[in-house]
Amino acid sequence: MAPDAGPLLSGITFPSDLKKLSEDQLPQVCSEIREFIIDVISENPGHLGASLGVVEIAVAIHYVFNTPYDKLIWDVGHQAYAHKIITGRKDQFHTNRKLNGISGFPKMSESEYDAFGTGHSSTSISAALGMAVASALKDNNGRKHIAVIGDGSMTGGMAMEALNNAGVSNANLLVILNDNKMSIDKNVGALREYLTTITVSKRYNRLRNAVWKIMGGDTRYGANSRAIVKQIGNAVKTSITKKSNLFEAFNFRYFGPTDGHDVVHLVKLLRDLQRIDGPKLLHVITQKGKGLENAEKEPTTYHAPGVFDRKTGVIKKDDCPEKLPPKFQNVFGKTMIELAEQNDRIVGITPAMPTGSSLNMMMQVMPDRAFDVGIAEQHAVTFAAGLASQGMIPYCNIYSSFMQRAYDQVIHDVALQKLHVVFCLDRGGLVGEDGATHHGVFDFAYFRAIPDMIIASPLNEVELRNMMFTAQLENNGPFSIRYPRGRGVLSEWRLPFEKLEIGKGNRIREGKDAAILSIGPVGNIATDAAEELENEGVSVAVYNMRFLKPIDETLLHQVLSQFKTIVTIEDASVNGGLGSAVIEFKNDNNYPGTIFRLGVPDRFIGQGSPEELYEYCGISKNGIKQKIKTGLGV
Amino acid sequence: MAPDAGPLLSGITFPSDLKKLSEDQLPQVCSEIREFIIDVISENPGHLGASLGVVEIAVAIHYVFNTPYDKLIWDVGHQAYAHKIITGRKDQFHTNRKLNGISGFPKMSESEYDAFGTGHSSTSISAALGMAVASALKDNNGRKHIAVIGDGSMTGGMAMEALNNAGVSNANLLVILNDNKMSIDKNVGALREYLTTITVSKRYNRLRNAVWKIMGGDTRYGANSRAIVKQIGNAVKTSITKKSNLFEAFNFRYFGPTDGHDVVHLVKLLRDLQRIDGPKLLHVITQKGKGLENAEKEPTTYHAPGVFDRKTGVIKKDDCPEKLPPKFQNVFGKTMIELAEQNDRIVGITPAMPTGSSLNMMMQVMPDRAFDVGIAEQHAVTFAAGLASQGMIPYCNIYSSFMQRAYDQVIHDVALQKLHVVFCLDRGGLVGEDGATHHGVFDFAYFRAIPDMIIASPLNEVELRNMMFTAQLENNGPFSIRYPRGRGVLSEWRLPFEKLEIGKGNRIREGKDAAILSIGPVGNIATDAAEELENEGVSVAVYNMRFLKPIDETLLHQVLSQFKTIVTIEDASVNGGLGSAVIEFKNDNNYPGTIFRLGVPDRFIGQGSPEELYEYCGISKNGIKQKIKTGLGV
Repeated sequence: MAPDAGPLLSGITFPSDLKKLSEDQLPQVCSEIREFIIDVISENPGHLGASLGVVEIAVAIHYVFNTPYDKLIWDVGHQAYAHKIITGRKDQFHTNRKLNGISGFPKMSESEYDAFGTGHSSTSISAALGMAVASALKDNNGRKHIAVIGDGSMTGGMAMEALNNAGVSNANLLVILNDNKMSIDKNVGALREYLTTITVSKRYNRLRNAVWKIMGGDTRYGANSRAIVKQIGNAVKTSITKKSNLFEAFNFRYFGPTDGHDVVHLVKLLRDLQRIDGPKLLHVITQKGKGLENAEKEPTTYHAPGVFDRKTGVIKKDDCPEKLPPKFQNVFGKTMIELAEQNDRIVGITPAMPTGSSLNMMMQVMPDRAFDVGIAEQHAVTFAAGLASQGMIPYCNIYSSFMQRAYDQVIHDVALQKLHVVFCLDRGGLVGEDGATHHGVFDFAYFRAIPDMIIASPLNEVELRNMMFTAQLENNGPFSIRYPRGRGVLSEWRLPFEKLEIGKGNRIREGKDAAILSIGPVGNIATDAAEELENEGVSVAVYNMRFLKPIDETLLHQVLSQFKTIVTIEDASVNGGLGSAVIEFKNDNNYPGTIFRLGVPDRFIGQGSPEELYEYCGISKNGIKQKIKTGLGV
Repeated sequence: MAPDAGPLLSGITFPSDLKKLSEDQLPQVCSEIREFIIDVISENPGHLGASLGVVEIAVAIHYVFNTPYDKLIWDVGHQAYAHKIITGRKDQFHTNRKLNGISGFPKMSESEYDAFGTGHSSTSISAALGMAVASALKDNNGRKHIAVIGDGSMTGGMAMEALNNAGVSNANLLVILNDNKMSIDKNVGALREYLTTITVSKRYNRLRNAVWKIMGGDTRYGANSRAIVKQIGNAVKTSITKKSNLFEAFNFRYFGPTDGHDVVHLVKLLRDLQRIDGPKLLHVITQKGKGLENAEKEPTTYHAPGVFDRKTGVIKKDDCPEKLPPKFQNVFGKTMIELAEQNDRIVGITPAMPTGSSLNMMMQVMPDRAFDVGIAEQHAVTFAAGLASQGMIPYCNIYSSFMQRAYDQVIHDVALQKLHVVFCLDRGGLVGEDGATHHGVFDFAYFRAIPDMIIASPLNEVELRNMMFTAQLENNGPFSIRYPRGRGVLSEWRLPFEKLEIGKGNRIREGKDAAILSIGPVGNIATDAAEELENEGVSVAVYNMRFLKPIDETLLHQVLSQFKTIVTIEDASVNGGLGSAVIEFKNDNNYPGTIFRLGVPDRFIGQGSPEELYEYCGISKNGIKQKIKTGLGV
């Protein structure tokens, strides 16, 4: 149920309500929005920190601009809670990220105020430029186009591609650079250092002012000052005042830095900027987690903290987490250290996900051998290729859905050169509440098309460890290991490493009537289903393929010869993955009959709990049992 | 056969030979290399202009640095001819780009001097950084790492991602920015304008010198100058001398601009830079096509001019090209104008390929509605999505192999939001001499995995036109049209537009004994094969699927019911494309038998003429006839 909103927020449903308030009421509105977000997110987990950081920006934009006529795009989009609350969705906000609830990200189909759907990083400037060009073509020349983008997202290459293109346009485009020094973890890279230099010292801005004064003929310093002016001459005007700023090098007019939590001042600035044509950038300094003390102090932890105490801010931990099986990401993180201790050629790479991937464990103990390269999947992969070309063995950890960003680099820089890069695809499969933008369901299909790519996916934590171990033993070219979000199934998982035979699966359950071919942790669902079927008098064998590519042809011959009823199951698009591979094998070897494919259907899947989504897709005990019974005609 | 090299070049096989010469002999070496390139490329077509532009850079690097111990990476790589000629491949250079000859691009397997294979743009800094980090980890601290990258490639986002990462490293990395103001066409965007400002005015550099002098305590201007110095203070030091340059904002030490054709001066500069640690960038101005008058004047035409007269530089045209069928790209270019004249919502987008895609035709007549966004495939797609979100219909033309760069954007920004973007994938299939990096063979597989993506591929020029026409009639979400490099088959192709039914194929030849299912222009090979088989007493029907997705299920039911011997053929990886789709349909509908799949096998295919490569892959009359005879047992 929706909590109560404060007295001002209660009266705000749409920006038109907000606009009725006076400027000096805006700080209170911001305060009430912040409380409302904390109220809701403390009970219904979501992206807390980023949203708390941009409350004033959201309020100022909707107060000044004419949304939704003016177009507003939130890069990444998980920071858009304030925006959602004041654009018609306050009463649904408690359904955030739930099945059939509102999305945790902007979504065009949800509201006309969500001008563009986001989720992955660094898209906003490109999209806003496209809109601005459309407006110009349609003679909607008064329309404004605003992209709010974080300093982390700005390191993504496509943001720079967009700046490069926008800078030579006359687009009515305002980029608001939300500089909180963070992505999920601390932002990294030269750009961050550059922004810090500007921000912290403020000398840059004093310089600008000083030079303007001198250029303007301040004669306080007498004749000699003019001599210097003459010497430096137009170069100063060109270089300092126009080209001395990174963004001005891209032909953007640069404004700031300014305090992103002073909503009244932001309103004033935005009013001024509204009157300036062409591409411009406002650099705003904000604090992630603003307004909740714990979140301000530990922004990475409070990026998406789960359930927490609304008053103290203290995060409510799972009961007895030490008794639960580990998260796959932590098996990765701990195993990386073990392997790297044994093999000094191993290095680790993450594009801005040290905490999410658990590579931070290795970064702490081996800082020289584990690299956070920023939100930069393309660079991460080719950087890995460069390392591998010199005999290193990079483990490049990228979430499945973000690996789509580096598809060309995997093909062109790694696979084509048969380089020994290990790709660890975390968040493979349906991820739950983050929804359609974040499901990692296409990787089996798009990786299987790549020649020489080894594609492995573990049944459980021990197999993940053994796949990671096997991947470094010898150079077989690119080796990908794909595992899901969340926890595994074993409490005893830290067993001695065992080498796996590449391209070989195994039978994990015997049976006579039907067979299930599975890959990845869904194999555990398969054995559960088989056990239930056993009780119903149906004997089902379960095979854990382990490798999608190369696929175990010996095993397939055996299964296809022995069984008439066969089900494949995978936590991935049925279109191009395990099911397709098995069917192709069946065709090429002229086996009869139909193979039932379970997996993610060929459509985009929305948000919900993982259990809800698996059930929806039929990747479940029920789904399996139904297919097998259909196949057997029982 | 290899032509004669000049007197100095004759004595050079490896850089060790080059190093024996005195510096004042280097200009002549460069001149002889240039002549040698012109001699060979005038008869055996290749990438002329870019290679002529970097002769001095190549010679200076190999003269100064200790290659191959020091690592040298050529971004894109088509400019590496001089490099190849002086690193052991002079005598093979006449086999450039031919079957079993040397590659037109750097290739690790070809020479230890090719530190990293390239082909696609903007990878070099990432790879060089990876190598530099590997060197540091292996205590090879004296090793140098050099990336030569054009100003066009620098607009690709991943180059910026790499700068951002490298700038906070201590990598022993030298980036040589080869600034010729060109990609294949004129380079575009804010970065280009920025570089031009630096280069043309040189005021920036004078400013730097002036400020250094003042900071250094030049008291010529008396006490007041010191007052100003004090006022501007450290801000100047920080902002002007360190942060005022775009590359210095990324923490690179910036040197230049300098004349890239003064080899003696380049040698001096590189010797100096060799002694400076950390990331640094040398900005070098070159002229594309340098040394061949026509190529200097018309750099786009002479990027890869085909056969030309060695003396005059005049390009030898095809005999009677007006009698040949048109190139598919020109059908696209001309049809774009026709459609845009009828529908004012249509716009065109190319990432730096106006001439290669023929979008330059539209850019000339409708400059406001056709956009070259720079080497920036990711941005191109999301820019298109932004336009489409406002009701425009963008035709986004990207070569198939480069579309791999924008895979995430196609999924996340276009398909997920069901936006009406038309993707025109030129260079689909095997492209011939450019080889493995440029073959566009994975697109069927990686696009088929995307929900709601319409995938069309025309049999001929008329179908291409009709697909382009159909794509804009109504919003069916993303609509992709894939066609090959080279010419079509029709002389009369400019017929009135006809709407095609989406997801419907047609029978283009009747037959009784066997059926061929084809998509794209390979359908013409299929009918040729069927005609030859007819003469041998075998009656073969040919079906032109037109759409890979949605696939024509009515047609498939009909064919699978009627025929026992069925061959699929596609100019794409058999792994995931038409063959896979048909087999999946067969399985799901429980049809018996084996379908023979012809297409590109699941391995990387090298260079050669298109005819040689098609024959190698069995995408040919012979390949079809053999499969059908096998199927029929005749």
